[in-house]
Amino acid sequence: MTAGQIDPPAPARAYAEDLAPGTAYRLGRHTLTEDDIVGFAAAWDPQPFHVDPAQRAHPRFAGVIASGIQSLAVLQRLCVESVYAHWHVVAGRALTEAVFLRPVRADTELTGVARVESVTLDRPAMGLVRLACTLTSRSGEPVLTLVAETYVARRVPAPPH
Amino acid sequence: MTAGQIDPPAPARAYAEDLAPGTAYRLGRHTLTEDDIVGFAAAWDPQPFHVDPAQRAHPRFAGVIASGIQSLAVLQRLCVESVYAHWHVVAGRALTEAVFLRPVRADTELTGVARVESVTLDRPAMGLVRLACTLTSRSGEPVLTLVAETYVARRVPAPPH
Repeated sequence: MTAGQIDPPAPARAYAEDLAPGTAYRLGRHTLTEDDIVGFAAAWDPQPFHVDPAQRAHPRFAGVIASGIQSLAVLQRLCVESVYAHWHVVAGRALTEAVFLRPVRADTELTGVARVESVTLDRPAMGLVRLACTLTSRSGEPVLTLVAETYVARRVPAPPH
Repeated sequence: MTAGQIDPPAPARAYAEDLAPGTAYRLGRHTLTEDDIVGFAAAWDPQPFHVDPAQRAHPRFAGVIASGIQSLAVLQRLCVESVYAHWHVVAGRALTEAVFLRPVRADTELTGVARVESVTLDRPAMGLVRLACTLTSRSGEPVLTLVAETYVARRVPAPPH
């Protein structure tokens, strides 16, 4: 896992007003081993095709595939490192249209991109930022797309002297 | 965590044709400790309000709150136990409109309900089932709602003799 690059350069930590639609972030990389996949699924998503490496008879998949929740977790980790760590995040509000496009298998390097879709400034203390994210395999095939809606603090004006 | 009750009673494992809109499932229970919350967030969502119990100065929350991804994971675990274990699941397709309505704090018992919204049988081998889910705190306040779209195998007719 490595930190991503920000393009264009952003200030140290951005407030909602600092974010503009179209700003894109390259995400870092993360690879799940078979043990990672089975361990996560045993805790959170114990379906046979996630936890049983011997289940080769599944009609669509050879070996285990990662839980979709784990794919979301990988994407979240990459977004925290490359995006949210650079924003004044207040809280996440929603994930819309998270679509699991392809199975994620063990030892596949995952990376991705995130792009600001919109910034809504209709509250005094925070803005709502919609971030469109794509998690891809190293070969560039998308495995997960979603839009994350996050509350980001607005810049507080300096108090009068 | 306990298995939920199914209402109305379903066959041992349901095919897509066996599922009807309106069928509701009561989910089991799961409680996250502070260690659970901090441990999950350290791995997947290392933002200060998820990983730092000393961060009492956060403007909105006292103590850590669970990562939204962990709330999704809890809901998935409860749905596997009470719903998907009783279906011939092929794969998850999407989560639509996952909304984090309230913060999830340590030692809050979580439970919920899941209801079949629709069953689409436009493919020969599988149907697409939309399941509307609500994760609630023990006091009944919803903390997370979403619709999960899952491919479920269709009943295969017996081959002719």
